[in-house]
Amino acid sequence: MPRLTQFRICPHSRSIRLALGELGIDHDTAEERPWDWRPAFLELNPAGSLPVLQTDEGTVVAGAYAVSEFLAETADTGARATALFPGDAAARAEIRRLVDWFHVKMDAEVTGELLRERLYPRLQTKLAGYTPDLALIRAVKSNLRYHLGYIDHLADQRSWLAGDELSFADLAAAAHLSCIDYLDEMPWDAHTVAKDWYAKIKSRPSFRTLLADRVPGLPPPMHYGDLDF
Amino acid sequence: MPRLTQFRICPHSRSIRLALGELGIDHDTAEERPWDWRPAFLELNPAGSLPVLQTDEGTVVAGAYAVSEFLAETADTGARATALFPGDAAARAEIRRLVDWFHVKMDAEVTGELLRERLYPRLQTKLAGYTPDLALIRAVKSNLRYHLGYIDHLADQRSWLAGDELSFADLAAAAHLSCIDYLDEMPWDAHTVAKDWYAKIKSRPSFRTLLADRVPGLPPPMHYGDLDF
Repeated sequence: MPRLTQFRICPHSRSIRLALGELGIDHDTAEERPWDWRPAFLELNPAGSLPVLQTDEGTVVAGAYAVSEFLAETADTGARATALFPGDAAARAEIRRLVDWFHVKMDAEVTGELLRERLYPRLQTKLAGYTPDLALIRAVKSNLRYHLGYIDHLADQRSWLAGDELSFADLAAAAHLSCIDYLDEMPWDAHTVAKDWYAKIKSRPSFRTLLADRVPGLPPPMHYGDLDF
Repeated sequence: MPRLTQFRICPHSRSIRLALGELGIDHDTAEERPWDWRPAFLELNPAGSLPVLQTDEGTVVAGAYAVSEFLAETADTGARATALFPGDAAARAEIRRLVDWFHVKMDAEVTGELLRERLYPRLQTKLAGYTPDLALIRAVKSNLRYHLGYIDHLADQRSWLAGDELSFADLAAAAHLSCIDYLDEMPWDAHTVAKDWYAKIKSRPSFRTLLADRVPGLPPPMHYGDLDF
């Protein structure tokens, strides 16, 4: 069975968990804390980034970019499976533009910073008493409003973010929003179009394991797991 | 004829210029200064990132990730063209892992910072007299040594960075090194394996236009264009 090394509140890991769910691929998971930099994990992925997929044949696929494309190339997509990059070359280019938007741009401007300030220190004994950088968090929240505005715009014009079909762009975007929502930082009321799109994704079976995730000592807000939030 | 909007000393733009060269695809180029955030350019690519490829059919492909995969899917690769992602799914996953390494990780840790500190301010009148952040540049140079050490390691074990064949991973890595070399920040003498690999790439016809690039008022070091550096 393939094995996914991941961290439960990591947007890149979550996008691949969603992809595996949509493709109907059974897998084991192993958890890796991104700040540990364990030598054994760095041997698997020298970049230290998550997630990493190991196949039954021993192939190691590191990082959401490589894993998503690998799954798209190799998954036995039956009639019921979701294609990660559906459509023609132009449609696929649009999906990839948006994956890059969420997994690189939004990660740098919002999600990564928020996790490093608000979540990781809570899980490290040596950082007990860590005081988040409030100026940074203010900037991140402002960036978040810009990104949600862009999701509003896309979801207003299209059935799914990249076009008529659900794609890995939706999974990547939803993975980021789900991490931010876990930290109760989503201004849902100001972004009702994005909220409706997220509710649609959130109700898919592939989302269930994400909604069941809990970080000890840091519970999500009540609405986090609620499909009718 | 396809049109590539790019900036001459941008690693992402350069990797695609190399890819177009290797694929033998004639194209026009338009230059966009990454710090201008021109509304007309943001209409083309709301992320504001480079490069952007526009096809004869009017398809807009934004960002090195989408463009590289688009070219790999659509290019009419004759016998003489280089495949950007050669090999089986596992080999392609390794190429993509490394593309991500250079275009995201190395960009964040080295190239992007160096360009923002050392190049962009020189080209903006309103930033005349800008003093680079020396502590940041020291950190970036330390990161650079780590990345070059990794290239040494890969090039020592393999013919090309991702395996036996030249791939987009080599083009991405070389694009970054070429920008850093333009700024005369490459400690070549300490990284002779990486240097030999770079010399091999640098001598390819696809590299010629990169070596001819000049930024007014900021000439590259003598060895920049020298194939026998």
